[in-house]
Amino acid sequence: PPGRKVLIVYAHQEPKSLNGSLKRVAVEELSKQGCSVTVSDLYAMQFEPRATRNDVVGCLYNSEEFDYGVETWEAYKRGSLSNDLIEEQKKVQEADLLIFQFPLYWFSMPAIMKGWMDRVLVQGFAHDFPNCYDSGLLKNKLALFSFTTGGSREMYAKGGISGDIRYLLWPMQHGIMHFCGVKVLAPHICFAPEYVSEEKRKEMLTAWAQRLKTLWKEEPINCSPEWYFK
Amino acid sequence: PPGRKVLIVYAHQEPKSLNGSLKRVAVEELSKQGCSVTVSDLYAMQFEPRATRNDVVGCLYNSEEFDYGVETWEAYKRGSLSNDLIEEQKKVQEADLLIFQFPLYWFSMPAIMKGWMDRVLVQGFAHDFPNCYDSGLLKNKLALFSFTTGGSREMYAKGGISGDIRYLLWPMQHGIMHFCGVKVLAPHICFAPEYVSEEKRKEMLTAWAQRLKTLWKEEPINCSPEWYFK
Repeated sequence: PPGRKVLIVYAHQEPKSLNGSLKRVAVEELSKQGCSVTVSDLYAMQFEPRATRNDVVGCLYNSEEFDYGVETWEAYKRGSLSNDLIEEQKKVQEADLLIFQFPLYWFSMPAIMKGWMDRVLVQGFAHDFPNCYDSGLLKNKLALFSFTTGGSREMYAKGGISGDIRYLLWPMQHGIMHFCGVKVLAPHICFAPEYVSEEKRKEMLTAWAQRLKTLWKEEPINCSPEWYFK
Repeated sequence: PPGRKVLIVYAHQEPKSLNGSLKRVAVEELSKQGCSVTVSDLYAMQFEPRATRNDVVGCLYNSEEFDYGVETWEAYKRGSLSNDLIEEQKKVQEADLLIFQFPLYWFSMPAIMKGWMDRVLVQGFAHDFPNCYDSGLLKNKLALFSFTTGGSREMYAKGGISGDIRYLLWPMQHGIMHFCGVKVLAPHICFAPEYVSEEKRKEMLTAWAQRLKTLWKEEPINCSPEWYFK
């Protein structure tokens, strides 16, 4: 609906890829609805995935023994995180919905996107014990993981060789988003696009556009072990 | 035992950290046994986690549309992967045991280590359909995930707020190592070292050294859904 803000965190090297098209479809459809859409195109930005001392500008809180979690927490409080992190945090802060668009790499997100999670979701900003899970600091936001797989739907079925696809969603949806208080919409999964026809790939794009039309009416999943492992 | 080769893939910024000490203990204990131990110290190496076109030296297989999986598979076959990847693959090839030592970041490994998985375990080298899972190309090797957590043992208990710690091991142990044919030893987990006394932390180091003494007699886990989700 008009006025809603969406941040798409996108991790694919190739604009012509299906992931690139899925990202474009989302920008178009959500803009058409009157949403304001921002994209963090991680490879194009050459986003830094490594959690290092460079994420803190100026002096360290404890220069004797570097603790990344403590240092970034302290730096957040005194406003001395590196600029790229401050920029991403602003985008997150403003967003009503976060869409993560990526190809599944090794049952998880590509390292460049994991680095975005590791570095942007700093203590004090995204969570701050006891403000985690349902009282995480990013509550009232929604997240949706949209990804492509190499393996087929059969491989990722319950009893399939790669196990239920939901098993691998636990660390991303529960461990990251739910931990920060974000409510999670059902994932959007395109299975094995490299092994289907061009026509089927077009249907995948249409299905995504179609889902986005009624996305704001969706209820979040019940992000508890039952959803993942039952 | 004498002659066994071990690769420790280590991801912590601070040598004085508990992770740094756990790594040192492993080097010492395994060397004492007569093993030959190599360490990939990812932060010190400034290891590149991003999967990009730079991983292929020279021309691309398909320069019209970049597909990372296809390009690195082809580059592996013709010997034109970037040097840092060739170096890591040599270390993996020679190793009987891979130890991954890291602090848990967001229910998973730090991005710099995820990048090591994304970039080093190339198709053709580590797997090559149908050579995956029990017939993966790295069969006859062992892997062990050794990590520290922020959350306590209670939080990571079955029914705890963060769910059974085994849930989050699925993508790493099954999705990566088992997929490549590697057999997985039980993980070694130090819960919440930042919240315990210096004495308790010393006990954690002793326990790790102690375990390593009889490590070669251990049986791998049964890396199937039952181990993780029952």
